[in-house]
Amino acid sequence: MTNDTHHSTATTTTTESTTASTTRTVAAYAAERPDAPLAKTTVVRRAVGEHDILIDIRYSGICHSDLHQVGEDWGTGIFPMVPGHEIAGVVSEVGPGVTRWKVGDRVGVGCFVDSCRTCDNCRAGLQQYCTGEGGAVFTYNSTGRDGLPTYGGYSAELVVDEAYALSIPDNLPLDAAAPLLCAGITLYSPLAHWGAGPGRKVAIVGLGGLGHMGVKFAHAMGAEVTVLSQSLRKREDGLKLGADHFRATADPATFTELAGGFDLIVNTVSADLDLSAYLGLLRTDGTLVQVGAPEKPVSVNAHALISGRRSVAGSMIGGLPATQEMLDFCGEHGITAEIELIRADRINEAYQRVLDGDVRFRFVIDASTI
Amino acid sequence: MTNDTHHSTATTTTTESTTASTTRTVAAYAAERPDAPLAKTTVVRRAVGEHDILIDIRYSGICHSDLHQVGEDWGTGIFPMVPGHEIAGVVSEVGPGVTRWKVGDRVGVGCFVDSCRTCDNCRAGLQQYCTGEGGAVFTYNSTGRDGLPTYGGYSAELVVDEAYALSIPDNLPLDAAAPLLCAGITLYSPLAHWGAGPGRKVAIVGLGGLGHMGVKFAHAMGAEVTVLSQSLRKREDGLKLGADHFRATADPATFTELAGGFDLIVNTVSADLDLSAYLGLLRTDGTLVQVGAPEKPVSVNAHALISGRRSVAGSMIGGLPATQEMLDFCGEHGITAEIELIRADRINEAYQRVLDGDVRFRFVIDASTI
Repeated sequence: MTNDTHHSTATTTTTESTTASTTRTVAAYAAERPDAPLAKTTVVRRAVGEHDILIDIRYSGICHSDLHQVGEDWGTGIFPMVPGHEIAGVVSEVGPGVTRWKVGDRVGVGCFVDSCRTCDNCRAGLQQYCTGEGGAVFTYNSTGRDGLPTYGGYSAELVVDEAYALSIPDNLPLDAAAPLLCAGITLYSPLAHWGAGPGRKVAIVGLGGLGHMGVKFAHAMGAEVTVLSQSLRKREDGLKLGADHFRATADPATFTELAGGFDLIVNTVSADLDLSAYLGLLRTDGTLVQVGAPEKPVSVNAHALISGRRSVAGSMIGGLPATQEMLDFCGEHGITAEIELIRADRINEAYQRVLDGDVRFRFVIDASTI
Repeated sequence: MTNDTHHSTATTTTTESTTASTTRTVAAYAAERPDAPLAKTTVVRRAVGEHDILIDIRYSGICHSDLHQVGEDWGTGIFPMVPGHEIAGVVSEVGPGVTRWKVGDRVGVGCFVDSCRTCDNCRAGLQQYCTGEGGAVFTYNSTGRDGLPTYGGYSAELVVDEAYALSIPDNLPLDAAAPLLCAGITLYSPLAHWGAGPGRKVAIVGLGGLGHMGVKFAHAMGAEVTVLSQSLRKREDGLKLGADHFRATADPATFTELAGGFDLIVNTVSADLDLSAYLGLLRTDGTLVQVGAPEKPVSVNAHALISGRRSVAGSMIGGLPATQEMLDFCGEHGITAEIELIRADRINEAYQRVLDGDVRFRFVIDASTI
């Protein structure tokens, strides 16, 4: 166990190095207050406990929800806030009771780092829906069971319970694998749960960080994939990613010509869409799954549901078993995210580009620059 | 084949009796124009064709949707309109090609009397969702494949294709069985489809004509049943029908104490409810099924869906196989509707009482009084 601050280039570190078996101070990028730009700082990580592993973070994806949380769009945040829940790295130390990992293992951490482990959902491997006291402990902007705030992946190192880390297959580059831990599982889980596969027609609404993973997964699962995007601007990208069809939702003909055609529609768009129009695109017994979270309630024409036993559902990331299954699936099919790798000092610029929709398709921070 | 007008007491009949193998004129109650009171009249039924049966209608239920259709709440109606799609009667004549029925058989007809028979839904036995040209032919206020308007069950006789009649088990009284053809299947189908049964907690929202059938079915299927009603006014009724619990939705404690408790909620209320509050009552992977059709779009908090992989679905009556399955289930379990039998000259009064919510739980017209 070292007690050096990781990445000694982090010269702004002011805290003293911690002692072995105790906490450690690590470099990070944090927002000091709501909506503040992210700036270099340090945070304290807990000591590596009995069942903990220390992860040398190599890459950390930028998820749109990072911006929402820094901006307190979803409620009061805990500051300073170190975002990041698309974490890929390498195990650099293991606690004495660790059985699953050894130093050098390639691991990922997603949106949560702990949960009650005893509620029905935890026992069913749906830790993201933990109904225990306080629910799941999220990777940042959350409070751990030790009562301390959690800090995310825009950081040099992370200490996490071994049960909440996932194995990243050897054939996947860690940088492009990082977004699998949120964007990937967010799309994989509903596609798998609602049975995307051969003979099934699947539409992915929106071709951003989430949507592009949906196209890759649905295609690899064997479904016939249509991208529904506002315009045809991203058509070439969509087809290259594996879509069979690409239609513009700004064109009313899309909604008449494709009516009743889909078994499953996954909507990655958080903006206020006319969901009833999309419901008309579903076959009998079809499901529209919302994975983005619109801030306003969505309005649904009940007749569109009733007239074809259709469903509107929601889905949030995935539990640990589904996330590992997704990573293994990615290993088998050679699937990773399409990324633009950036230095940490470009995080704020990247945030603005996310807001502008100017990203193909996910920014990933090179953690060696933190 | 007789060519007498059925029920010779129908002295208002002015049309000449029809000849054998041609059309027949039968007594009926019709609204002559939108929102007009129903009055005694006659309508012409087609000749009993090769695959048709003639049904001597004995009883006809009054469904709330009859009022909506007479009132043109759901679109322009075809007048004169003879409502009624909860029909129980006895086969009185069969066409030469009929194989399923013989004179004297106890049969029911529900909401539709024909469909394309070739689309995916028809082939799957989901005729109510027929996607063929023009969709299913509804029992009234619809246009048959012969181009003529259909007339419903507030009538003395009905000619229908043998494939669209259902068998009513011998142990069920025809009067209380009539509402099974709409109210019954409307609740049975979603309960069966979404797996109400032992170990499952089911809530039925609203204890009217639909809801009371839901309680009976969910109880008979072995589920733990809770009625969610505005007040506790119908509590005794609910428990007597088979509910294990009865809670008032006007009491905010209902929504906190029962949070996350149900696998399935079937909402029979067409009024504009706060569905998001009801979604909070669902467990992870739970489904809220809307069977009443609110006129305004329903508003759903997407977070309530996403945070537990919950669904809002819709369901409309049931196909022929499900309807027969439901009737057989009713025969096995001795299930019928709770009814108030009325003479035909009290239909308008009954309509007013339906509007006033003054019915326990379904009005059924004694067709011998038509």
